[in-house]
Parts: sequence; structure tokens; C-alpha cells
Amino acid sequence: FPWGCKMDQYDVIDKHTQTGLDLVERYIKFVKERTEIEQSYAKQLRNLTKKYAKRGSKEEQECKYSDHASFQDILNELNDYAGQRELIAENMMTGICVELTKYLQDIKQERKTHLSDAKKAQQNLESSFKHLESKRFAKEWAEAEKATQQAEKTESDLNATKLDVEKAKQHAHARTHTAEECRNDYAAQLQKYNKEQNLFYYTEIVQIFNNLQDMEERRIRRLAEGYCQFSDTERKVMPIISKCLEGISTAGSKTNEKQDSVLFIEQHKSGFERPSDVEFEDYTQGIKPASSDSSLNPPRVRTKLWPFSKKNKVNYPHCYSRAWANI
Amino acid sequence: FPWGCKMDQYDVIDKHTQTGLDLVERYIKFVKERTEIEQSYAKQLRNLTKKYAKRGSKEEQECKYSDHASFQDILNELNDYAGQRELIAENMMTGICVELTKYLQDIKQERKTHLSDAKKAQQNLESSFKHLESKRFAKEWAEAEKATQQAEKTESDLNATKLDVEKAKQHAHARTHTAEECRNDYAAQLQKYNKEQNLFYYTEIVQIFNNLQDMEERRIRRLAEGYCQFSDTERKVMPIISKCLEGISTAGSKTNEKQDSVLFIEQHKSGFERPSDVEFEDYTQGIKPASSDSSLNPPRVRTKLWPFSKKNKVNYPHCYSRAWANI
Repeated sequence: FPWGCKMDQYDVIDKHTQTGLDLVERYIKFVKERTEIEQSYAKQLRNLTKKYAKRGSKEEQECKYSDHASFQDILNELNDYAGQRELIAENMMTGICVELTKYLQDIKQERKTHLSDAKKAQQNLESSFKHLESKRFAKEWAEAEKATQQAEKTESDLNATKLDVEKAKQHAHARTHTAEECRNDYAAQLQKYNKEQNLFYYTEIVQIFNNLQDMEERRIRRLAEGYCQFSDTERKVMPIISKCLEGISTAGSKTNEKQDSVLFIEQHKSGFERPSDVEFEDYTQGIKPASSDSSLNPPRVRTKLWPFSKKNKVNYPHCYSRAWANI
Repeated sequence: FPWGCKMDQYDVIDKHTQTGLDLVERYIKFVKERTEIEQSYAKQLRNLTKKYAKRGSKEEQECKYSDHASFQDILNELNDYAGQRELIAENMMTGICVELTKYLQDIKQERKTHLSDAKKAQQNLESSFKHLESKRFAKEWAEAEKATQQAEKTESDLNATKLDVEKAKQHAHARTHTAEECRNDYAAQLQKYNKEQNLFYYTEIVQIFNNLQDMEERRIRRLAEGYCQFSDTERKVMPIISKCLEGISTAGSKTNEKQDSVLFIEQHKSGFERPSDVEFEDYTQGIKPASSDSSLNPPRVRTKLWPFSKKNKVNYPHCYSRAWANI
């Protein structure tokens, strides 16, 4: 069979295109694992924010202070941030993994078709070659030569009858006729075969190779798209992630320690005056000396300690409102 | 004791400043947990890139093709990306956790000092109050009155001797003198105490409260800095992360399917001609018919199948070099 290395050629194309599809499959798997990492990262960030978020009423009280409030803002921003990481994971999954998987199915099918077309064309050509009856022609021609030699031998045999000679000649003639018919058949088959061989090498296989090359080049372009999507998916949410980070900075710079001092004073100021001097208790001026200690406490100085108490709040001049000690 | 609610006041400041320190501690713990999440995220990304990176020589061969090479570039970029996430974690740890922990130790110590100063001042004042000898004065004055009444009673007693009367009068006089001395002591102590009370309310505690307020306001500002660092740390590496993402896009657009086709052709082209027509083998022209099949193969068409073979490479016109089928 003349093209003994043909199977090598198919093997090379088969292997090369298979390697291409394997890379697509590998890339899909890679992106899928990346989305799992993103999901787990986002989940951990969400759990972190949940863990530190305030919920109780005591804690809501604390959140009136700017340092507590800003921390809660930061947690909210980080929670949004986690949401963006989830979005990255989801968009990678649907935009890359799902789409490329669909594409991979299609191109696998297409490759199978091209390779099977090539196989079929090759088998047709092989089959035509097998039908070339050069062997039969050779065999018939040998028979004819043998019959001709036999006829010549019979003719020169002194013992042979004329009938024998005639019979041998007729036989030789018949065999030669058959051999010539075989030769004509073989010539016709050969012409047909060479036409097919030309079709195979100049049209069919060219077309199939072009198709496979086109398929392979499309696959590379499509995979390259998938590569770009890998970063585009993340770059698309970068402005929102930047906003989350800005939000955290804003929360950080929103704390106001002076205002927190005012709030603390507002919540706890007593409004009571500083105690006045303890007065002299002059037992010599007709005050009945007491037997118990109670009356020893000077009644006019029995006052809540300044500045803390929840009752009897008093408004103070503004200039004092920002200092714990000056309410 | 006149300032019965003083302990409430200390409790309020004590609790308020403790809540402030707790928030710093809580924030440090929060950032530490965030760094652990970043570290684990980075580690997972690194493992992912390692898993998909090519190392074998067969794989290096594949990497000459642009789609494989770009994938390796993407893995490298993602590995750099992971490095940036590690940097975020490290910078958060050293820039926020370590620094704030040091700061927290300092401010805890400072708070302890202020609160103990307040306690000491309070205890001093309490101690001065306890030394006010109004009880002794009352007791002495009662004794003196009793002695005076006793003297009067003795004087009007018809059975009393002159000596009894004189003794009682002397006793009453002595007690009254003692009581008056007590009164003078008490008056001096009271003057001293009122001076101390004034110092306590108008100077000492004002200073201590101002110190605590200042400490608290510094704490809030420092914590706010820590808040801003939380996003700044990440924002600082954002340009490099953006570069990694750009690098991935670049890798994606670097694939060149036409060049890959050329490379594939270069690596596998045979250089052999298409087989020519199978020639007619005319056994009638004195060719000895063969007994074996081997000589049936036309010798001139025994050729490696076009276009693949590793030997006998031939240079072809450039116009053909980009099509698999036209080498």
C-alpha cells in the first residue's frame, strides 16, 4: 500500500487537536477551582463581619459613639466587599465555565466529524486500491503465456496429432483473449483509481485539513477570549471594590472624638453644683447634741457628686459642653 | 459622707474608658482574623497556580504554542496576585495589629494611672473628712453642759457643802474649757477640709477628668487611624493587583492562532510530494510475472504520505506556510 505513513499523519493531527481540547478542559477546571476559592474567601469574610456586627440593645447604645459606629460601617463595607468577591465567582462560573463547557461539547463533535470524514475518504481510497486487479491480470497473462508455450511445444511434437495441435492453439488463443480482457479491466480500474487518488490528495484531504485547521484556530481564539474574561470579570467589579475601600476610609475619618465627648457628657451629666463648703456646726448655739450620727451630716452639702447623675439635668453654657470636667 | 454618688461617677468613667479599650482590642482581633483569611486565600491561589503549572519536558514542548504559553503566563500573574494578597495580610499584621497592640498596652497603663490618681485624691479627701472632730466636739460640749447643769444643781442643793459646790463649778469650768478647745480644733480642721474639698473639686478632679478625656479622644483618633489603614493597606497594592489583571488580559490577547498553525506545520511537515499516479504495470511487455505480491507495489509511488514526516524537510514558498493542507 503506497502511503504507509498515512496513519502517522492522522495520529499527529488527532493528537494535536486532542491536546487543544484538553487545554480547554483544563482551563475550565482551573477557573472552576478559582471560583471555589473565591466563594470560600467571600464566605469567610461574611462570617467575619457577622461575628463582629453588633446586634444587642446594649451594643446599639455603644454605636452612638463614632468609634463604634465607624467600626460597624467598616463591617458593612467589608460585607459588600465579600458580595463583590461572590459576584466574581458567579460571573466566572457562568461567563467562563458554563459557556466554555458548551463550546467544548460543540467543538468535540466537530472534530469527531472531521476526523471521521478523513477516515472515510482514506478507507474509500484503500478499498479502490484493493479492487485494482493487477494480480488477476498477471495471473491470467501467466496462464496465457503458459498455454502459448504449451501450444508451441505441441506443434513441434512429432507424436502430436493435428487435432492436438489445433486444440492447444485454441486454448492458447482463448487464454490470451481472457488475459487481454483482464488487462483492459485493470487499465480502466487504474484510471478510475488515479482519479480518486487525485481527488483524495488535491481536494478531499485538503478540505478536511483546512477544516481542522480552521477549527483549531477558532478554538484558540475562543480560549483566548476565555483567558481575557478571567481578568475582565474581576476588573469589572474593581470600581465597586474600590468604593468599598473608600467607604472604609470614610468610616475611619468619620470618627469624631470631640462629638463623642459631648455625647458622653449628655448621657451622664448630673447637673448638680459642686458641693459647697461644709458648714461649722456650732453645738454651743443651743443645738441639741445628737445621740445618733445621722444629724452630723450637714444637710445643705448632701448633694450628688458633680458631674454625673441621670436626673436634674441642667443646661450649661456652650463653652463648657465639650469638657468632661467642666459641665 | 456628702458625696455618696461619687462611686457611680467613677464607675461611669471607668466603664466608658474600658469600653473604649475593649473596642481597640476587638478591632485588633478583627484585623488579625482578616489577615488569616487573606493568608489562606493567598495560599489557595498559590496552590492552584502550582497545580496547573507545567514542568515536564513534554509540557514545555506544548508551551511553544501560544494558547499553552498564555495559560502559563496567566498562572504566573495569578501567583503574583497571590503574593500581593500575602502582602496585604503582612502589612495589616505589622501596620495595624502589632502597632495597635503596643499602643493599647501604653494607653491601658495611662488609664490605670489616671484612675488611681482619682482614687487617691478621693481617699485623701475622705480621710480628711473622717478627721473632722465634730463628734468629739459635740460629745465634749454635752459633757460640759452636763457638768454645768450638775454644778447648778449642786449650788441649789441645800445639803451640799461649799466645797462640793466649788468642786462642781471647777469641774464644769474645766469641761467647758476642754469643749471650747475641741471647738477650736474642729473649726481649724473644718477650714482645712473645705480648702481640700475646693482643691479636689476645682483642681484635682478637673485635671484628672481632663486627662481621661484627652486620653479617650487620643484613643479614638488612633483607632480611626487604624480604621483607615485597614483600607489603605489594600488600596496601596491595588495598582499592582491591577497590573496582574492587565497581565492576564495581555496573556489572553497574546495568543496567535495563525502562528501556532505555522509552528505546528514546522514541527510536523514531511516535505514529501503528493504521490503521483499509480503506473500501469504491463506484464505483456516482457515483465516476468511475479509469484510474490511484493513487486506489485509500484516502486515510484512508495512515498511517505504528504504532508507529515520528520525527515527530508523541504522549504516551501511562503504563501503556503500558513495552511495545514498546503505545505
